[in-house]
Amino acid sequence: MLRVGINGYGTIGKRVADAVCAQPDMELVGVAKVRPDYVATGAAHAGYQLYTVDDEHTEAFAAAGIDVAGPLEELLTESDVIVDTTPAGIGAQNRPLYERHETPALFQGGEDATVGDVSFNARVNFEAATGADYVRVVSCNTTGLSRLLAPLEETVGIEKTRATLIRRGGDPDQTDRGPINDVVPDPVTIPSHHGPDVQTIFPDLSVDTIGLKVPTTQMHVHVISVTLAEPITETAVRDLLRGEDRLCLVPGYAEIDGTGTLKEFARDSGRPRGDIWENCIWEESITADGREFYCVQAIHQEADVVPENIDALRALAGTHSGPESRAITNETLGIGFDRFRSSPKPALDPTAAD
Amino acid sequence: MLRVGINGYGTIGKRVADAVCAQPDMELVGVAKVRPDYVATGAAHAGYQLYTVDDEHTEAFAAAGIDVAGPLEELLTESDVIVDTTPAGIGAQNRPLYERHETPALFQGGEDATVGDVSFNARVNFEAATGADYVRVVSCNTTGLSRLLAPLEETVGIEKTRATLIRRGGDPDQTDRGPINDVVPDPVTIPSHHGPDVQTIFPDLSVDTIGLKVPTTQMHVHVISVTLAEPITETAVRDLLRGEDRLCLVPGYAEIDGTGTLKEFARDSGRPRGDIWENCIWEESITADGREFYCVQAIHQEADVVPENIDALRALAGTHSGPESRAITNETLGIGFDRFRSSPKPALDPTAAD
Repeated sequence: MLRVGINGYGTIGKRVADAVCAQPDMELVGVAKVRPDYVATGAAHAGYQLYTVDDEHTEAFAAAGIDVAGPLEELLTESDVIVDTTPAGIGAQNRPLYERHETPALFQGGEDATVGDVSFNARVNFEAATGADYVRVVSCNTTGLSRLLAPLEETVGIEKTRATLIRRGGDPDQTDRGPINDVVPDPVTIPSHHGPDVQTIFPDLSVDTIGLKVPTTQMHVHVISVTLAEPITETAVRDLLRGEDRLCLVPGYAEIDGTGTLKEFARDSGRPRGDIWENCIWEESITADGREFYCVQAIHQEADVVPENIDALRALAGTHSGPESRAITNETLGIGFDRFRSSPKPALDPTAAD
Repeated sequence: MLRVGINGYGTIGKRVADAVCAQPDMELVGVAKVRPDYVATGAAHAGYQLYTVDDEHTEAFAAAGIDVAGPLEELLTESDVIVDTTPAGIGAQNRPLYERHETPALFQGGEDATVGDVSFNARVNFEAATGADYVRVVSCNTTGLSRLLAPLEETVGIEKTRATLIRRGGDPDQTDRGPINDVVPDPVTIPSHHGPDVQTIFPDLSVDTIGLKVPTTQMHVHVISVTLAEPITETAVRDLLRGEDRLCLVPGYAEIDGTGTLKEFARDSGRPRGDIWENCIWEESITADGREFYCVQAIHQEADVVPENIDALRALAGTHSGPESRAITNETLGIGFDRFRSSPKPALDPTAAD
């Protein structure tokens, strides 16, 4: 059993904690948190051991009626590996602490690529992280782009990728974020950092990304344009994408018109927190014309990196191959919307046919 | 003097009416409207003659305290040309009426291209509309794309244009429109109708567009990706775009980060209704790398077609050349944000320099 500790218990940390508990080969030692807020209460309710940084913080937790198991350093000692899910930039500050305890660690995509020895995506470069001590799981957007580009690159090759990232302004709980009634190029310079970040996964890929923020909280939406190295038919590319374990093709007959309906569908499907771990690609948007490929996909910023963290833990532990790990993660979390896969109406819109 | 009547007095009609009144060579005969709403009150306040469809509607206006000058048919008889700014689809229904009165007419971009003998953009094909009887002024998005692509096509040639259109969900007064907290691919199929519509202006252009709707009301935002026929430097392309009369380059030092700030700037500049007739291109987004060109521009959906309608009137009347008409329109409306053009800081972001 891999003993896992989590430092930082927020949007990603709480989801990774639940996912760790669902794995047959992992054990959650506990989670470390600074403030005794509603998320901490949730951890206590889930029965997770709560650690915090020092005595002063312990008193604050006690005042909120939450028991603290011990200081963060104890969590580091007790864990085989730490998943650092602290806010962006804090992870890099924490690395020396993990090194002093000789505890391997995962970091998140908000950190610079230099925080880890390797940047990780389970579909593309699982083996690169095997046995590494410090691994960075790339961001939600980079994860979403990598999963989609991998089968295209492997099958027909990619000459050039151009992606427009229409980013949610904030997460549902980030009530102090904008924009309000606005579309903000962010960054206004081109390319955005996402393209170079994809290149931490695909070093030789030609990819330009352009980012904007809009006043939504639910999911990012990517408009993808790829010039392929060789032509592919629409039927072939649709089948190719349908064969990927963490891509979900959303059919037209389902009448899922946007990110709001997607999240509603996920809640209806009984997903924990309404999470969507898969890229959701609108099937009707899949367009291939010679070497030109287009599609539109939605990425749940709070969720898609969760299975990637689980797989990164196994890569770091060196206990499984990539396909073995992904299969266990998919099975234990329930990845894949089965009702779409077994649909009796695979081709839905005559205009989308070849 | 060209005697102009306007049928339909809403978002576009009221703006075209004001613009007609600002022209030295045009006279506003009056405007026709169905409902005595706040916009009709505004027309009466502006001193515009109000026409309506029949006696029943005349009574409704009378009940609202608004005098009606006569029936629509009288407006058609008294006008040399009609600008049809009725809702999308109604213009085509109206064309037989205009034909019976032998009154030439302009239609708007919400109509199918077949409504007119020619689709019109003042920058690209003014001459094609000279002396035509029925002219369609293309939509706000197609206008915005055409203005930007024209200098690129003329100077270095365009191999392929790909544009992502992040469309405002509704106008500020359309309180019943969505989406709320959502990003909706609209249409989900690729290309959207905008690409073919651009081809009504540039018949041989290779252009694919992808449309989405977001919960804002202020402006559309276009993410533009063009593969040029020949390479161009960033400095050269910036100068090229800066030389266009209806493109405004928004410099970084102005700290105009999105459509909200752009509209605030327009209001601060004393623009009527805060209108922005120009494409607003974020200067920092202008990126050229060999034959690849990118930029991000905002398009004020309520305003950018207004000067185009004025120029289309002159094209139809056959009284001026395109450059002559555009110069008069620009001067009378006040097109061009002068404070940007005379800026002492033309290059703002070192990362955007060559």
